[in-house]
Amino acid sequence: MANRADQNDTDIDTARAAESAAAGPGAPAPGIPPEEPREEFDPQLDAGRVREVLDAIDAEDAAALTVLLDPLHPADIADLIEQFDDRHRRVFLEVWGSEIDGEILSELREGLREEVILALPQETLSDAVRDLDSDDVVDLLEDLEESQQALILGALPAIDRAQIEQALAFPEYSAGRLMQREVVRAPEHWDVGQTIDFLRAADNELPDQFYHIMLVDPRMRPIGYVALGRMLSSPRSTRLADITEDSFRTFGVEQPEAEVAYAFNQYHLISAPVIDAEERLVGVITIDDAMAVLDEEAEEDILRLAGVGEGSLSDRVIDTTRQRLPWLAVNLVTAIMASLVIAQFEGVITQIVALAVLMPIVASMGGNAGTQSLTVAVRAIATRDLTGSNVWRVVRREAGVGLVNGLIFAVVMGLVGLFWFSSPQLGYVIGLAMVVNLVIAGLAGILVPVALDKVGVDPALASGAFVTTVTDVVGFFAFLGLASVILL
Amino acid sequence: MANRADQNDTDIDTARAAESAAAGPGAPAPGIPPEEPREEFDPQLDAGRVREVLDAIDAEDAAALTVLLDPLHPADIADLIEQFDDRHRRVFLEVWGSEIDGEILSELREGLREEVILALPQETLSDAVRDLDSDDVVDLLEDLEESQQALILGALPAIDRAQIEQALAFPEYSAGRLMQREVVRAPEHWDVGQTIDFLRAADNELPDQFYHIMLVDPRMRPIGYVALGRMLSSPRSTRLADITEDSFRTFGVEQPEAEVAYAFNQYHLISAPVIDAEERLVGVITIDDAMAVLDEEAEEDILRLAGVGEGSLSDRVIDTTRQRLPWLAVNLVTAIMASLVIAQFEGVITQIVALAVLMPIVASMGGNAGTQSLTVAVRAIATRDLTGSNVWRVVRREAGVGLVNGLIFAVVMGLVGLFWFSSPQLGYVIGLAMVVNLVIAGLAGILVPVALDKVGVDPALASGAFVTTVTDVVGFFAFLGLASVILL
Repeated sequence: MANRADQNDTDIDTARAAESAAAGPGAPAPGIPPEEPREEFDPQLDAGRVREVLDAIDAEDAAALTVLLDPLHPADIADLIEQFDDRHRRVFLEVWGSEIDGEILSELREGLREEVILALPQETLSDAVRDLDSDDVVDLLEDLEESQQALILGALPAIDRAQIEQALAFPEYSAGRLMQREVVRAPEHWDVGQTIDFLRAADNELPDQFYHIMLVDPRMRPIGYVALGRMLSSPRSTRLADITEDSFRTFGVEQPEAEVAYAFNQYHLISAPVIDAEERLVGVITIDDAMAVLDEEAEEDILRLAGVGEGSLSDRVIDTTRQRLPWLAVNLVTAIMASLVIAQFEGVITQIVALAVLMPIVASMGGNAGTQSLTVAVRAIATRDLTGSNVWRVVRREAGVGLVNGLIFAVVMGLVGLFWFSSPQLGYVIGLAMVVNLVIAGLAGILVPVALDKVGVDPALASGAFVTTVTDVVGFFAFLGLASVILL
Repeated sequence: MANRADQNDTDIDTARAAESAAAGPGAPAPGIPPEEPREEFDPQLDAGRVREVLDAIDAEDAAALTVLLDPLHPADIADLIEQFDDRHRRVFLEVWGSEIDGEILSELREGLREEVILALPQETLSDAVRDLDSDDVVDLLEDLEESQQALILGALPAIDRAQIEQALAFPEYSAGRLMQREVVRAPEHWDVGQTIDFLRAADNELPDQFYHIMLVDPRMRPIGYVALGRMLSSPRSTRLADITEDSFRTFGVEQPEAEVAYAFNQYHLISAPVIDAEERLVGVITIDDAMAVLDEEAEEDILRLAGVGEGSLSDRVIDTTRQRLPWLAVNLVTAIMASLVIAQFEGVITQIVALAVLMPIVASMGGNAGTQSLTVAVRAIATRDLTGSNVWRVVRREAGVGLVNGLIFAVVMGLVGLFWFSSPQLGYVIGLAMVVNLVIAGLAGILVPVALDKVGVDPALASGAFVTTVTDVVGFFAFLGLASVILL
């Protein structure tokens, strides 16, 4: 393997495309001393800076805040605002609110964004919104009350306002909401030269970011796209239609954004056209927005699996309590159901109190095994790895895994039962109950999310409660039931 | 709000940049009947097609497989292979293995990829690898045994081999492994015209996908980048240095890929240069790779939170059992610890068997509340929302949420205890135990992951076991302890 000392030479070789460019006119002359390292490029949000910002807020020092915050990326400023407590946030918005721009607003978490928007002076808000691309304005507006939406829309030029209102007419979490309406498109018969001339003439009107030129037919339907890199490297006379990319894929305006994000990740898309019911090009989705959706979807699954709704660390105790209470209430019902099972066996427990000591072990192991299976299943459904064609094989496998793990832990717990309580029979009972519960856990862990998905319920949301109920009830019933048959 | 009928007119207006292009020469003449909808562009992997593929495998019909698979994206073919059972996969590789190309290999899950690579004829493998970009080859190689790596490296031209070997010298999951070494770069003093001429001359040598031209100084250090869209819309005489983007950010070769993915998502990057210890440009990371990493990181967190290791649905029962057993073993230890607590109170339980019936409720509610807190904390640590500057506020909040939820469920369970067992004292005991356990659950749920993160252990991996131990032990101890003080 090449050692590190060789790397210098090879690096230049290997960036083959730009070789002559980089190694050519500007190659370093030997003997020139290395320059000083340049100043830090992207100041991070570290604890020291946060402390300084909080001090500046306490001192209500707007100038100091500007010095501290100006070098930060809007996304980092938004994160910072999310970390403030209520008092700091209130003072911060009073002192520095007028400096908040559209990009910072876009980066704020939904719950907090509304609070910040309400606190901003009308003029600041108008300025902030005017600079944003249409998809970002839509993102900003969609969680606001109608009256606040009107406030912001009022600040926009009529043409932008019409666009935004159209986007808001699409269903929430649809491609139509996610797309930006500024599209760079060209008729299919154009060549590279025409397109470059057109782009140069349109410079001021172009979207901030675009990666493809969309080719449209006379009915405005997208029929392919050309990557900018490909266009730059082709002679002026090349027809656009001859250098389109294979990766081309369109999305319907009403398609759920989760599907769009999945397709971007699956097919390595960078941008993709969005079409209306008549197949006409109405917008474009870019990968950065798809990436944000993919991240949000994963976050939603993680939180839902744990029975936590949307929310953020900056929420107040009362909001957080309200988010978490429903799941705890569901859990209480399932726990009571398990208790009702135990209550059927009060007589046995009074005679053999060791059962009360050991019974939570069986239920707990079942609950854990069930959670393992259901998490794998929920994730596999989300990534389309679990489908109608392999579900029965996966069910068999989960049952098999439950059986093997059940047998292993049956032996372990049998020995524990034997040595702790000097009762071989108690060992048999707990071992047998363990096998039964782990097999059932494996089956429930896969069948419950698959069934919920079939009937259109998000499996991440509801599977946990069902599976735990099954493993608790089966665990207690198997253990105490077997005990009353074998031990009495 | 604009109604849907208006949309047609406004669409053309709103794609401002391309307005003249699209609405100009090729605008549809009124009265022309709509064309037939074109043929389906991207055939999806639906149950029907999967069935047909399985039939073709059973018939060992290579020609039919080619007809079915050729229209599919390599990522979909890879997903299909993952869904086969062992027998179908073996026959498929025999019959159609020689058609498998590098892109399909890249898309396969790690565990399976090794199996497929081993089954392929040497020549197919060599062809497959030669077509890939360097980052994809690295991705392919890094999970293989040394002897298999040598096999694949042997198939590559010497220059590519050297690059790959250098990439493999970087730590696993580092920016150096993730980057592609094919970089399009230009000296800082070039103008747009020079760059376009250079790109046209280099056409065949350019990477498949690139979105920025990296500007380098004479020491080969990246000093900025120019978006291709910006370049296309600027006159030939424009200096590259005058149209660089603000979003420019560099990564070190040794930086963990998770950090890179976070930064791409946080700062909306599309591509970013990677530099070595001397700050020289050695490669570039593009957003599609960062997106894949972000997705894998989220998957890892989801699975680890449930105590499931890496693995896939195509793993065999024995592999899956091995992955899940360690967590179940840990859980067994914690469950036994909880049982030891119960065992201290055998005397009380014998006298009041209702305690055995009710005690799992307290533990279960604590476990759920703890899981809620810890999941929020793990996610907030992953997204950098939970930091040193807000951790104490979040701890106070979690304790507050635990207290409020505890009080609510204390009342509910108090009433259940009262009416079910006609004992007000039993109601007090379970209510009090509930409050104690939910507050402790909130505290443990946040402090355990924060502490694990501090000492460098992945909080997603280990928090669950610790928190459940705490809530089980505290739950049983508080309930039975209070019972023996108050009820006896």
